[in-house]
Amino acid sequence: MESAWPYITMTLGILGMGMAGIYAWWVLRQDPGDEKMQDISRHIQEGAAAFLKREYSTAIGFLVLVAAAMFFFIKADLPSGGSIPIGRYEALAYLFGVFCSGSIGVIGMYVSTRANCRTTQAAKTGMGSALRLAFRGGSVTGLSVVGIGLFGVSLVYLLMTEWWKPDTVLQVTTLGRNSVPDVVAAFGLGASSIALFARVGGGIFTKAADVGADLVGKVEAGIPEDDPRNPAVIADNVGDNVGDVAGMGADLYESYVGSIVAPVALGAILFAGLAPNNEWKGMILPLAIAGVGVVCSILASFLVRSKASAHPGRSLSIATYGSAILTTIAAFFLVALFLKDMQGIPHPIGFFISIVAGLSAGMLIGQVSEFYTSDRFPIVKNLAKSSETGTATNILAGIAAGMQSTTGSILLLVAAIAAAFLAGRWAVTGAWVMGTGELSTTGITGGIYGIALAAIGMLSTTGTVVAVDAYGPIADNAGGISEMSHQPPEVRQITDSLDSAGNTTAAIAKGFAIASAGVTALALFRAFTDAVGIDSAVGVDLTKYTTVIGLFLGAAFPFLFSSLAINAVGKAANKMVEEVRRQFKEIPGLLEGKEGVKAEYARCVDISTKGALRYMVTPASIAVISPIAIGLWNVDALAGYLAGALVVGFLMAIFMANAGGAWDNAKKFIESGNLGGKGTPTHAAAVVGDTVGDPFKDTAGPCMNIMIKVMTVIALVFAPLFIR
Amino acid sequence: MESAWPYITMTLGILGMGMAGIYAWWVLRQDPGDEKMQDISRHIQEGAAAFLKREYSTAIGFLVLVAAAMFFFIKADLPSGGSIPIGRYEALAYLFGVFCSGSIGVIGMYVSTRANCRTTQAAKTGMGSALRLAFRGGSVTGLSVVGIGLFGVSLVYLLMTEWWKPDTVLQVTTLGRNSVPDVVAAFGLGASSIALFARVGGGIFTKAADVGADLVGKVEAGIPEDDPRNPAVIADNVGDNVGDVAGMGADLYESYVGSIVAPVALGAILFAGLAPNNEWKGMILPLAIAGVGVVCSILASFLVRSKASAHPGRSLSIATYGSAILTTIAAFFLVALFLKDMQGIPHPIGFFISIVAGLSAGMLIGQVSEFYTSDRFPIVKNLAKSSETGTATNILAGIAAGMQSTTGSILLLVAAIAAAFLAGRWAVTGAWVMGTGELSTTGITGGIYGIALAAIGMLSTTGTVVAVDAYGPIADNAGGISEMSHQPPEVRQITDSLDSAGNTTAAIAKGFAIASAGVTALALFRAFTDAVGIDSAVGVDLTKYTTVIGLFLGAAFPFLFSSLAINAVGKAANKMVEEVRRQFKEIPGLLEGKEGVKAEYARCVDISTKGALRYMVTPASIAVISPIAIGLWNVDALAGYLAGALVVGFLMAIFMANAGGAWDNAKKFIESGNLGGKGTPTHAAAVVGDTVGDPFKDTAGPCMNIMIKVMTVIALVFAPLFIR
Repeated sequence: MESAWPYITMTLGILGMGMAGIYAWWVLRQDPGDEKMQDISRHIQEGAAAFLKREYSTAIGFLVLVAAAMFFFIKADLPSGGSIPIGRYEALAYLFGVFCSGSIGVIGMYVSTRANCRTTQAAKTGMGSALRLAFRGGSVTGLSVVGIGLFGVSLVYLLMTEWWKPDTVLQVTTLGRNSVPDVVAAFGLGASSIALFARVGGGIFTKAADVGADLVGKVEAGIPEDDPRNPAVIADNVGDNVGDVAGMGADLYESYVGSIVAPVALGAILFAGLAPNNEWKGMILPLAIAGVGVVCSILASFLVRSKASAHPGRSLSIATYGSAILTTIAAFFLVALFLKDMQGIPHPIGFFISIVAGLSAGMLIGQVSEFYTSDRFPIVKNLAKSSETGTATNILAGIAAGMQSTTGSILLLVAAIAAAFLAGRWAVTGAWVMGTGELSTTGITGGIYGIALAAIGMLSTTGTVVAVDAYGPIADNAGGISEMSHQPPEVRQITDSLDSAGNTTAAIAKGFAIASAGVTALALFRAFTDAVGIDSAVGVDLTKYTTVIGLFLGAAFPFLFSSLAINAVGKAANKMVEEVRRQFKEIPGLLEGKEGVKAEYARCVDISTKGALRYMVTPASIAVISPIAIGLWNVDALAGYLAGALVVGFLMAIFMANAGGAWDNAKKFIESGNLGGKGTPTHAAAVVGDTVGDPFKDTAGPCMNIMIKVMTVIALVFAPLFIR
Repeated sequence: MESAWPYITMTLGILGMGMAGIYAWWVLRQDPGDEKMQDISRHIQEGAAAFLKREYSTAIGFLVLVAAAMFFFIKADLPSGGSIPIGRYEALAYLFGVFCSGSIGVIGMYVSTRANCRTTQAAKTGMGSALRLAFRGGSVTGLSVVGIGLFGVSLVYLLMTEWWKPDTVLQVTTLGRNSVPDVVAAFGLGASSIALFARVGGGIFTKAADVGADLVGKVEAGIPEDDPRNPAVIADNVGDNVGDVAGMGADLYESYVGSIVAPVALGAILFAGLAPNNEWKGMILPLAIAGVGVVCSILASFLVRSKASAHPGRSLSIATYGSAILTTIAAFFLVALFLKDMQGIPHPIGFFISIVAGLSAGMLIGQVSEFYTSDRFPIVKNLAKSSETGTATNILAGIAAGMQSTTGSILLLVAAIAAAFLAGRWAVTGAWVMGTGELSTTGITGGIYGIALAAIGMLSTTGTVVAVDAYGPIADNAGGISEMSHQPPEVRQITDSLDSAGNTTAAIAKGFAIASAGVTALALFRAFTDAVGIDSAVGVDLTKYTTVIGLFLGAAFPFLFSSLAINAVGKAANKMVEEVRRQFKEIPGLLEGKEGVKAEYARCVDISTKGALRYMVTPASIAVISPIAIGLWNVDALAGYLAGALVVGFLMAIFMANAGGAWDNAKKFIESGNLGGKGTPTHAAAVVGDTVGDPFKDTAGPCMNIMIKVMTVIALVFAPLFIR
């Protein structure tokens, strides 16, 4: 059975990719609507393609440098003396990871930007068919993420262990195992690297366009949202796709791959102690769970039907929770299949509990986000109310709400960590509570494996979460297109309610993405400490001055990164404002809406693109280079650095996502007629809050997820350079 | 010589107290001005006294509970078996610490609120005499802080080792030393506890009054700042004293005592290994440095003279840097005196370098604050410029500036930590660079002692820093009184320039307070890990799940604390707004300024007081109780918790102080005629930024300093309950 499973998971990966292909084919043969709708959609497509192309070509130089560093410098030491250049294989796996991640961006954007006008067209025949179309469009991205991810990891694994079997990778190094996990980790780093640029660049792009469009169009010129006269409107619509399709897709793809990489990297070492001769099970179980996760995501995508159409939000929730429940059931049987009656693991059910702990924490942290950002709960209502006393009180209340929301999320996260650890420890020792004296190595090993399984459990529903998230910009764009092509009000009503359902689920997806980034990075952190030879006998010791210095530096980095991202949005948005003003002034008849006069949309897309590319390089480069630089100085400092960045990055991600979401929905709450509605000073204050929140929730916040993962995984891959 | 030094330092403490008394006597016999000025000052005095009284009586119940917990539960184990109830002595020391800290608040507030009208009166005769008066008023607080602090620590030390010598304290416990350091630490905790309430309560009080006075008075009713018709104006002036005299005084008093406590607690252990039979030197050297610091602060206070009066800001800088230079020189001789030709310490000059590293870092971190918050530098100018495009861009630029400022401060802090450690290690081993293999216990011991000395070095200038800071509200109040009592413009001009000099130095003092809180807490953290038996062989291990959980929880706490503080200001300010509106409506003739009609100032003071007392209890209690609760669960988790709170609290303190300061000065920059000046939309945007920044820089931010210290010192004092 040992060698069968990687083939099975690779097949499941192909299944996911195939299903994504089927959905893509289905979406593309739907009616794209009239010429006007297609024309608008085509502008969005061209803008998106142009952005992606330039983003990738800017990033590639940097990525090739990283690959070259790997190729030439990473070597593994052999117990017999001498070393082997495993970096060569890692560099290849890395570039393959980059290619996979990049492809997902291209595929997802290609389909999303074509599903938008088709959704508008479908909305003419009713809510149900429009919902189905938008969700299937999103599912293309969702299933690509998990399909390509699983396929890629399995392929790399099989290449290294079965087909190619390069000698230099399979020799046992001083770390007591072969280098297969390292090569798989390099594949994960490829995913991370492109995700980092996608998140940072995409985040800057989307908000520069959004802020620019709003400030001049809505505020200064007084024209409505999504009005075709606004030159930045296409850039704004492109930006939605860039953020939620390419950005979130790359982000969760990265968490997904990372969550598989971590237990693969840990599995061999851990199971070597736990259950000799069964090491492969430790590495394959996570792959298998990821595999059934793909199947469950496909099944869940069938749950969004045209019939259950009255509440699009409810349909999306059914898909999300449906896939979680299906995965839970499947995980139970997988754990039983792999670990039942196995020597060394008296209570395999413990590992199942670890998986469930992760899965539930992901969902519950999403619920915390919902609580702090939905107007069904008091936080947003109070925030709206605080706008009555002015802008300052609105800003303060929003910041306070975001800060406060970290407590609930952190409590859930640590509860999941504790549960996963204790259940894993129980699985191998049979004891729930143990004094520190009796803390056996076996118990710790089981506990850590439990934490890694919690990560994979949480990520097993990735396919559905990404699908729901990528559904968002399709519905949003469909609304934009129906507005710009002057569809009848009933069509707009449908696209509006699709859009609003997407906003709620997007908030939950954000919470999920943060939680998954946290546990994934934690699992990778542990894999890193093992890889550099920090076992529990030595430890990452906070009484060392080097570790403390690292912790301080790491904790400060998310603050620096956020400030760079926020400033980048400000600068790029300023350029956009100038351009929109220029067009209104210089293009005669544009503002009056004269027939045949068109704004120069492409120039606005270009400005956003340039801004994004220019400002993404600094923060992204620091994230990649700083762990290597610190690691070369001192490995304790690097461990502290990673821990600091992980913890603070996680907090900042939650703070900014929830503060931004709360401001956004407080504004919408007022706009829907509460507290005086639109046009009041209360509304004006809420609009400022929303504008402040935009780069929080869509630029700086989401970058934190990738940042903490990319820093940890780069430390893991370059670990041989730092071994003490 | 061993027994002489505590007497010498106690004498120096008394000298500081005596000098404070002389200045107080001098200030109080100056001309308090005409009846109107005295009347206004009396209102402020009464308000301040009423607030302090109620704050202390609210806090005392909680403090007695903590003392009782100490009294009954803290026991030290003996190697021979059995244990001794050292908690009884600790409880007494604790209450003595509370009394000392409380006295400083009373003395400082008493003099400050009487120096204000006298400064206004002195301004009639010229800048020089007004500057001298205000600074001497501030020096009362500054010298009380260091005088009482040093006297208290010396007294407790002498009581335990020379006069009373209780058996139970002097027996050698399982920790390998007697409990004298623990009793001294309990004295420090007393300082911390009252400082915590002073900072939180004071911070809420001052901003509720400020925001309330501004929103209704300046914005709604359109009357100028410090107009006697505004009912909240007295509360606002009381608030300045509460924040900068009682709050900052208690804060730095606490850092000061903490920085002495940490090396006393560490000294015995460290020197036992380094230089047997010379342990007392390890404990007494820090006391001696603190002692000469008092003398240098007194000398520096003579540097502010009436003659050099053209630039009040320059005079204050001369005092600050003068005291730093004097202390450096004195420290050099002290190190030589104590450690020259001593067995085990081949290079005593290394410890002098450690002291200088701390002293310079404190000054330089103040300079970073200056760079980010003064309109002489580009950050504030750009922030003012960003107000031109609206409120949202102002808010975002301010947040980004604050976040970015953490990087410079952190780099300086870690540079100081590294320098202090390496210099300390060199002092005992003679080696600068050592591979990890050669990291001897002796080297580590020397390095850690170096870090503790850096803390005391930084804090040795406390007397002057507090004096400069407490000068601020006196000058500010003097301006208010001259406004309210309708003094001629030339008097107001003098008080205005005194006030503006105070604002700049207050920003530097804030940076200094944060830096000192960071290193003090770090030194206390190390004392804690020693006290619970986490030596470098065991370590605070970040690969343990318990430590990670603690780290996450600790890192989240500053976010929770800040959100509670910000919300508290919002709620209390809302009540104030309602009251001011009510008085304008219900008191006939008030708004018109009719002769003989007076606002009900006391009611506004009362509202601020109630708000402060009501909302300070929750965050303060969590800060005190949570370390005990987590420690009782797991000592690794507690260590992680303290580390997380320390690092994130430090970052948040810098972020909020500098963002708030930048907003404040961007507004003032515009008000002084730049970018269109007052009354423009640009100014309006900057005013919103300033209002958002107020609770950042004056409530939540400063609370972080105390929070991180109180959590660490409570863990240190209650350590016997957690020993593993």
